[in-house]
Amino acid sequence: MSGQRADARRNYTRILEVAVDEVAAHGVEASLEQIARVAGVGSATVRRHFPTRRALLDAVFHERIEVLCTSAHDLADAPDPRGALLEWLAAVMDYGTTASGFADALVLEGAAHEAAACATKLADAGTPLVQRAQHAGVVIPEVTVIDLITLITGIALATEHHPDPAAEADRLLNLAMAGISPVP
Amino acid sequence: MSGQRADARRNYTRILEVAVDEVAAHGVEASLEQIARVAGVGSATVRRHFPTRRALLDAVFHERIEVLCTSAHDLADAPDPRGALLEWLAAVMDYGTTASGFADALVLEGAAHEAAACATKLADAGTPLVQRAQHAGVVIPEVTVIDLITLITGIALATEHHPDPAAEADRLLNLAMAGISPVP
Repeated sequence: MSGQRADARRNYTRILEVAVDEVAAHGVEASLEQIARVAGVGSATVRRHFPTRRALLDAVFHERIEVLCTSAHDLADAPDPRGALLEWLAAVMDYGTTASGFADALVLEGAAHEAAACATKLADAGTPLVQRAQHAGVVIPEVTVIDLITLITGIALATEHHPDPAAEADRLLNLAMAGISPVP
Repeated sequence: MSGQRADARRNYTRILEVAVDEVAAHGVEASLEQIARVAGVGSATVRRHFPTRRALLDAVFHERIEVLCTSAHDLADAPDPRGALLEWLAAVMDYGTTASGFADALVLEGAAHEAAACATKLADAGTPLVQRAQHAGVVIPEVTVIDLITLITGIALATEHHPDPAAEADRLLNLAMAGISPVP
């Protein structure tokens, strides 16, 4: 039984790992059959762990939020506080671009509180990065991590139908962080 | 007959004028009865000119786009090119905040091409303002009016559920135009 449980856990971890990659590459319509194939398990095993596409996507986005929180923690003592913040924001933007179709679906299903919970978790993780950059005098004191996450959310929504949403979102985030004035 | 036609035209113009104000104040759920009352006409007259709420909203947003195009034209020789651009963008942001509920409705009804047509019209009107500020060296050459309209659209969508969407959207637009770096 214990061996079976260990197998099941390995399968779960493996399927989730592959699903994170497939959703990053193909969005929320990623093929469950392809995920099973790459993970080296049968479709029935995928369905046993994740009975619905929604259950799999929930796990994928939960996992990505965890990774973003860990990475905020890891960046908290990087040598360049502004670079660390911008690197983390770019990762959040990348998450936002993939998640925006999913976020729409969540809102339509009335699960806006889940999206809000994700935003709160990210805000808590990102706050030290913003504060450190502000203490170093390289980010203006008026900006909050919530402002930055709101801008990222907006950019993800507004670039959703662009031919290359990830690249376009990245470009607009850089524009918004730099502002429109020439550096004197 | 001619007098009746002139009356009808006056009523149309008056109802539209009031509707623009009411939608600005109360959003896309503005009361048709209130619009009739303020315009000093009967509900039947409103319905004769605008058989559905959708028809009235189409006319309101069309009218607001026209006003924004005229204002871009008027601002094109204002003394301060950067101030003129920012003033116009604030007006577009204000439009975007009111229109975002309507834009959602349009997308759901599959009329995304109407939203795209509005964006194109605004882009054409705003291009001279951006170019003039760039020629004056007060706006970076990389930014396009489409970038700015996309940011505005995103901010409107991301602040839709904020307690004070207009103020919050205005603040975030200013943040994105200024960037996060302290002025040296």
